[in-house]
Amino acid sequence: MNSNDSDQRVLTLSCVDVAGIVHAVSGLLLDHAGTIVESQQFGDAETERFFLRVRFARTELGSFDDLKLRNDLERLADRFSMAWRLLNPAARPRVVIMVSRLAHCLNDLLFRNSIGELGIDVVAVVSNHPDLRPVAQRYGVPFRHIAVSPATKKAAESELLALLEQESVDFVVLARYMQVLSDDLCKVLEGRAINIHHSMLPSFKGARPYGQAHERGVKLIGATAHYVTADLDEGPIIEQDVARVDHSMTESDLIAVGRDLECRALARAVQWHRQNRVVLNGTKTVVLQ
Amino acid sequence: MNSNDSDQRVLTLSCVDVAGIVHAVSGLLLDHAGTIVESQQFGDAETERFFLRVRFARTELGSFDDLKLRNDLERLADRFSMAWRLLNPAARPRVVIMVSRLAHCLNDLLFRNSIGELGIDVVAVVSNHPDLRPVAQRYGVPFRHIAVSPATKKAAESELLALLEQESVDFVVLARYMQVLSDDLCKVLEGRAINIHHSMLPSFKGARPYGQAHERGVKLIGATAHYVTADLDEGPIIEQDVARVDHSMTESDLIAVGRDLECRALARAVQWHRQNRVVLNGTKTVVLQ
Amino acid sequence: MNSNDSDQRVLTLSCVDVAGIVHAVSGLLLDHAGTIVESQQFGDAETERFFLRVRFARTELGSFDDLKLRNDLERLADRFSMAWRLLNPAARPRVVIMVSRLAHCLNDLLFRNSIGELGIDVVAVVSNHPDLRPVAQRYGVPFRHIAVSPATKKAAESELLALLEQESVDFVVLARYMQVLSDDLCKVLEGRAINIHHSMLPSFKGARPYGQAHERGVKLIGATAHYVTADLDEGPIIEQDVARVDHSMTESDLIAVGRDLECRALARAVQWHRQNRVVLNGTKTVVLQ
Amino acid sequence: MNSNDSDQRVLTLSCVDVAGIVHAVSGLLLDHAGTIVESQQFGDAETERFFLRVRFARTELGSFDDLKLRNDLERLADRFSMAWRLLNPAARPRVVIMVSRLAHCLNDLLFRNSIGELGIDVVAVVSNHPDLRPVAQRYGVPFRHIAVSPATKKAAESELLALLEQESVDFVVLARYMQVLSDDLCKVLEGRAINIHHSMLPSFKGARPYGQAHERGVKLIGATAHYVTADLDEGPIIEQDVARVDHSMTESDLIAVGRDLECRALARAVQWHRQNRVVLNGTKTVVLQ
Repeated sequence: MNSNDSDQRVLTLSCVDVAGIVHAVSGLLLDHAGTIVESQQFGDAETERFFLRVRFARTELGSFDDLKLRNDLERLADRFSMAWRLLNPAARPRVVIMVSRLAHCLNDLLFRNSIGELGIDVVAVVSNHPDLRPVAQRYGVPFRHIAVSPATKKAAESELLALLEQESVDFVVLARYMQVLSDDLCKVLEGRAINIHHSMLPSFKGARPYGQAHERGVKLIGATAHYVTADLDEGPIIEQDVARVDHSMTESDLIAVGRDLECRALARAVQWHRQNRVVLNGTKTVVLQ
Repeated sequence: MNSNDSDQRVLTLSCVDVAGIVHAVSGLLLDHAGTIVESQQFGDAETERFFLRVRFARTELGSFDDLKLRNDLERLADRFSMAWRLLNPAARPRVVIMVSRLAHCLNDLLFRNSIGELGIDVVAVVSNHPDLRPVAQRYGVPFRHIAVSPATKKAAESELLALLEQESVDFVVLARYMQVLSDDLCKVLEGRAINIHHSMLPSFKGARPYGQAHERGVKLIGATAHYVTADLDEGPIIEQDVARVDHSMTESDLIAVGRDLECRALARAVQWHRQNRVVLNGTKTVVLQ
Repeated sequence: MNSNDSDQRVLTLSCVDVAGIVHAVSGLLLDHAGTIVESQQFGDAETERFFLRVRFARTELGSFDDLKLRNDLERLADRFSMAWRLLNPAARPRVVIMVSRLAHCLNDLLFRNSIGELGIDVVAVVSNHPDLRPVAQRYGVPFRHIAVSPATKKAAESELLALLEQESVDFVVLARYMQVLSDDLCKVLEGRAINIHHSMLPSFKGARPYGQAHERGVKLIGATAHYVTADLDEGPIIEQDVARVDHSMTESDLIAVGRDLECRALARAVQWHRQNRVVLNGTKTVVLQ
Repeated sequence: MNSNDSDQRVLTLSCVDVAGIVHAVSGLLLDHAGTIVESQQFGDAETERFFLRVRFARTELGSFDDLKLRNDLERLADRFSMAWRLLNPAARPRVVIMVSRLAHCLNDLLFRNSIGELGIDVVAVVSNHPDLRPVAQRYGVPFRHIAVSPATKKAAESELLALLEQESVDFVVLARYMQVLSDDLCKVLEGRAINIHHSMLPSFKGARPYGQAHERGVKLIGATAHYVTADLDEGPIIEQDVARVDHSMTESDLIAVGRDLECRALARAVQWHRQNRVVLNGTKTVVLQ
C-alpha cells in the first residue's frame, strides 16, 4: 500500500440493461474490500444498453488481488454478457502522438503532460515531416520521421505499426496529422486512435474547414475530437469546443482562434480516454464524468 | 400501472460515506421490483459525506407499495444515519412565485411551465406591487397583492405564510422579488425558497449590481440562483450563468443582457429543485445531474 | 426638438473601398449640424467593399432636414456608387411574425417587445395553424390564420403578400414557421425576411435537425438566424447560438435546450436588423455592432 | 515600400467628444495619402470622452513621412486637446515577462509568440525563483533570477527597473508573478504592466482565489487580465474568461481548469495591448476591436 493513497482501480463496463447490475457489481466490490470513490452510469433507452464506470479504493491495508478481481469480474461478465475493462488509475498509459507541420496541439499536450495534467507516457512523436523535431526535443520525447507518399504509404504504416507494437503503445493521438490512415490501420487502431478535426463536425468535413467556414459566413467555429474510423470525419465524437467569430475575421484569423479550440478539445478527449471515461455506443460515445 | 410509463420514484439521500451504501440501496430496490433508470452520486472527500440520487422504475406490472418502500427506507436510514426524500416524479409540486415590478423571470417561468417544461403547479403569484397582475392572468394564475412597508412587513409575512400553508405549497421562487425576507421567514423556508440575484455572486452583492458592474468595468456579467438564507446574498448557490459585455454598454444595456441570464439560471434552478437534484452540503449545494 | 433626446438618424452604406469615404461622409454630417454618436465600419479585403453604419445626432436645436439630407446623400452616393439607407432610430418598423404550432419564439419576441426591448410594431401574427391564436391575443396582436396545402399554397402566399402591402410591413420574421416559401415569395422578401433554423448551419439542414444531431452524437447543438433565400437553409447567416449537450440527452431533451438557443439567436437577429446593423455582403452578412 | 504590404500606421487617440473629430482626422490621413484599413470608435456618454483607433495604409508608393505626420497630429491634438499614440504595426514591442513558479502562462505566451501570434520580442524572463529557467531556455529567451525578500525588495525592484531601461522595454507582463509590486514601481509602470489574476474580479481578490471559489461553492470560475495599479487587484480590467465548474471538483481541479482561463485571458490582453487597442478611461478600459 502506498503511504499516501489507498490502492485504487477503475472498472468500466457495458451490457444489456437489466435489473440487478449495480447490486451485483457493488457486491463484488465489497467482497474485495473496495469502496466506491466515484461512479457514473447511463442507461440508453434507445439501445437498451447500460454503461457503468466506477472508481473504487481499498478500505483495508494492502492492495487489491488483481487476479482474483479479474476472475470474479469474468464470472460477472458471463452472467450479464458484459464488456469490461479494469485499470489501475495510477498506471501511465503509453502514447504515440502523430503530427505533421502544425505545432500547437503537440506543444499543448506535451506541456500539459509535463506539469502532470495528463498522466501519460509519450513514448514517441511520429511525423511525416521533420519540422517539429525541436518541439519534441524540448520535452525530451523521441521524434521519429516517417515520410509518407502514395508509393511509401504501405511501408510507412507498417513502420508505424511495428513501433506501436514494440513500444507496447496503448493509444495514439493524431494532433493535426494531415495524412489519411488506411482502412486496415483504422481497423487495427479502432477505439485507440483519437483525432482532432478543425471544424464543428458534421459541418465542414474534409479539407480547409476554416476556409469553408469563412466562405459560409458562420458566426461560430469549432473543433471536434473523435475516434478514428475508416469513414473519414465520421468517427464517434468525444468532445467539441466552439468560439464566436465575426465578419471582420479572415480565414487566417479563424485559424488562430481555432488553434485554441483544437488544443482544448483534444486535451480533454485525451484525458477522458486515459481515465477510461469514454465508451463506444455504436457510432456515438458515452462520456462518463 | 399507466399505459405508457412504468411507475417511477426518485430517491435522494445523503449520509456519512462508508462502504456498502450503494449495495444496500440497490438491494432494497431489487426487493421492490425496481430497476435503476438513472443514478448520480458524489462522495465529498472534505466533509466525508455521500450523496445519492436514484430514479427507479417497476420491472413488473403494478405500482410501488409506497408504505412498504418508506418503511424499508426508514430501516436503511437508521442503519446509515441517512437523510432521505422519496418523490413520485410524476407528481406536480405546488409553487408560489413572488415578484415585484419586473416581469421577465415571471413570464419566463409561466411560459416554460405552460409548454410542459417545468412540471409544477403555480398556485399563486404574490407581489408587493399590483403591476404584474396581467402577466399572471395571461396564464390563468391567481395573483395576490400583499403590500409591504416597514409598518406592515410582519403582517405581510404572516399573510404569505398563511397562504403557503393553506395551499400546501412545496416551494417558493423569488423571481426578482425586491423585498428582504425576515430572518424568521428565511428559517421557515430553509431549502424551500429559491432566489435569483442579478450578479455573479459573490461579486456585486446588495443593491444595483449591474450599476456596480458597469462602474467596475468588468468584461463579463452574470446571474446567480441560490437558496434563500438569513445571510443576504450568501445562500447556497444552485446555478450561475454569464455573458460577455464591453465598454460600449451602458448600465441599461447590462440590465437587458442580464434579463436573459436571470431567466435561464432561475429556470434551471427551479427544474433541478423540482427533480430533487439539489442537496444542501453545508453552505454549498450538490447538484446531481 | 424633443425635450429629452436630440433628433437622431442612422445611416448605413456600402460601396467599393477607396480613400476619402469617411472624410466625405463626416463632412456631410457636419454640414447638417450632425455629430457622430456611434460608428462602425468594415473594409472587406476580399471583395474590396466598404461598409459603414453611423448614428448621428443634431448638435443644435431643431430636427434634421430629411429632404436636404437625402438629396446630399444622393449626390454622395453617385460619387462613390454607394448603396445606402437612412433611418430615424425612433421610428418603429412594422413587422409580421409567422408561426406554425410551436410557441416559444413567438412568445419570446412578443414579451421582449412588450417591455421595450425590440422597438417594433407587430402588426399581425400569421400562421398556417390556428393553435397560437391565444398567444397573440395575450399581447393584443391580431392573429391571421392562413391555411396552406399544396392546392392552396399559391393563394395563401397571395393573401400574405396582400397583407404585407396593406399593412406597409417593413420586414417578416419566421418564428418556427414550418412551410417552405416559394421562390417568388423569397425573391419579393429578399433581405426582409428573417428565419430561425434549429441547428448550427450548415450542420443538419432540412428536417428534424435535433433528431439528426442526436443520431450523430454531437456534444454541442445550435440555432441559426438567417435571411430567407430561395436556396433553403442557405441564406446569409445573421446570428448563431450554441449549448453543450451530452450522451444522456434524448432528442426531446435537445429540443428543450434548443428552444432557448432559438429564442436568443432570433431575438438578436431581429434587434440588429431593426437597428440597421446587418448589411448583405454576397452570401454573407456584415453585422455592424 | 515593401513588396507585399503597404506601409501602415495605427493611430489611437482620446479627447473630449465634440463634432468634427472624425472629419479632421480623416482629412489629415488623406493629406498623407493614407486610406483607412480598420477603425473603431467609442463616445462615452458618461465621461463625454471620445476614443478612436484607426489603422491606415499608404495609397501610393513610398512610406509615410513620420516626422510630418507627427507634426500634423501634434497640431490636431492641440486643437482638440487629444492624447494620442502613433505606432507602426510592423514594429515589435520589447517585452519582459515576470513569473514565479507556475509555468503555464509563460509557456503559453512563449509558444504563441514562437508561431507568430503575438508579434513581440521577449527580451527577458524575470523571476523571483530559479525554477522556470528551462522553460525560457526552450525558447531561447534570456532568464534573469532576481530574488525578492522583505530585505531585498527595494534592491530587486531597482535591478528590474535598470533592466527595463537598459533593454528599452515597452511593456511588462506579470504571468503569475506572485510578488506585490511597490507603489513606486506601479506608478512607473502605469499602463505598461499587465497582470493576470486567477479569479473573476472583483470576486475573490487576494490570496488563494480558487480556494475561496471552492469554499463558496460557485458554479463558474474565471480569470482577469488587468493593468497593474498600486491598489491591488483593482486595476483597469482588460479581459476576463470563464468556465463552468461543479460540486465534484476539488480546489486542485479548479486550479487545473483555471490554468486554461488564465492563459487565454492573458494572451488576449497582451495581443490587444500590443495592437494599441486598449485605452484607459478612468478606472476602466476601452478595448477598440
